[in-house]
Amino acid sequence: MGSFPVTARNRVRRLSEKARYEEAAVFSVLDAGFVAHVGFIDRDRPVVIPMLYARDGGRLLLHGASKARIVRLLASETPVCANVTLVDGIVAARSAFNSSLNYRSAVVFGRARILEAEEQRMHALRALSEQVLPGRWDELRPPAPRELKMTAVIELSIESASAKIAEGPPQDEEEDYAIPIWAGVIPIASTLGNPEGDARVPPGVEPSPAILSLAGRRL
Amino acid sequence: MGSFPVTARNRVRRLSEKARYEEAAVFSVLDAGFVAHVGFIDRDRPVVIPMLYARDGGRLLLHGASKARIVRLLASETPVCANVTLVDGIVAARSAFNSSLNYRSAVVFGRARILEAEEQRMHALRALSEQVLPGRWDELRPPAPRELKMTAVIELSIESASAKIAEGPPQDEEEDYAIPIWAGVIPIASTLGNPEGDARVPPGVEPSPAILSLAGRRL
Repeated sequence: MGSFPVTARNRVRRLSEKARYEEAAVFSVLDAGFVAHVGFIDRDRPVVIPMLYARDGGRLLLHGASKARIVRLLASETPVCANVTLVDGIVAARSAFNSSLNYRSAVVFGRARILEAEEQRMHALRALSEQVLPGRWDELRPPAPRELKMTAVIELSIESASAKIAEGPPQDEEEDYAIPIWAGVIPIASTLGNPEGDARVPPGVEPSPAILSLAGRRL
Repeated sequence: MGSFPVTARNRVRRLSEKARYEEAAVFSVLDAGFVAHVGFIDRDRPVVIPMLYARDGGRLLLHGASKARIVRLLASETPVCANVTLVDGIVAARSAFNSSLNYRSAVVFGRARILEAEEQRMHALRALSEQVLPGRWDELRPPAPRELKMTAVIELSIESASAKIAEGPPQDEEEDYAIPIWAGVIPIASTLGNPEGDARVPPGVEPSPAILSLAGRRL
């Protein structure tokens, strides 16, 4: 895999030593999450909406209700910026100035368009399901025609992207190390807990393999 | 507390039964998080950047390096949309169509401006520290003049906002309940782990009360 060319659009300006432009680095952040914050312009104003996504090669796949405003706005090569951020820890330094967060973040710039071909739409819906619940798609009945009609699938081709990865202990001012105060990292773990069946699971029906394989998974 | 008037800007269009316009509901989401996805327009293109924030009354406080592009762009009544989303679970329904996420999300529309008055800036920096690490500010040395000079403080006044809260078990099609498959919720917990001191904590110096009070906290 290659790298995203560094341009005015994707260049990381602050803390540029944490910037990563290789596709592998950007994709690794995108593959770890499943909610993107999608930004677009609506009547000259910015709007940011959280959306489920799947990373599929060099594009993000999104979906929404066919009648949704966002689908109309994202329909025709609309410029979009999507950000995926996973917070890994609180960096408690010896000063407020040097305190910060550890995180993995990817920013993607591209254009959105609606996918119309049925085969592409099904591929995308499966990818969206797999990004959140790997293996679940094949355990479920196929989508009904009515459901497919109600669902729009959006492709965001990644024209430009970068990642920013902050990790490790605090970086304090040299003179602050003389202060006798504890400093370090408080890790943040996002963990999937035990599946909670709903009230209408028939007696004797246990969580499926796809569900069981998720339990305890760390995002 | 009152409610945000429902306008074309903040009206929740999809799944509107999950929409909340009361200040109390919006603020409760904003108070639970500390990373906002901040959207603005840069040269006719949308940009979304994750930023630490503090909610302080009817405004969000942000900060950045004085020389940062984002500070320049957010300087003068720039229209901004900020979104805070906390994902609480994966809703594994009896169909892909009805599978979804449980989440708490708040979207805020406003205008950004730089705060110049020293007292306001210090108030904001303390609030930002408190949003992530309550009690830590008072354990640390005060900010140095050089640090204050390098830091810009941004106020985002909340002109309009809404929250969207998805919770509870799957809502399946009535006929799908006959399918003998497990369905329910896989909870996602974001938890703060055990503090990891860095290599230069002096022997005998233990995590401070502010650090200890965070351990095990759930976001």
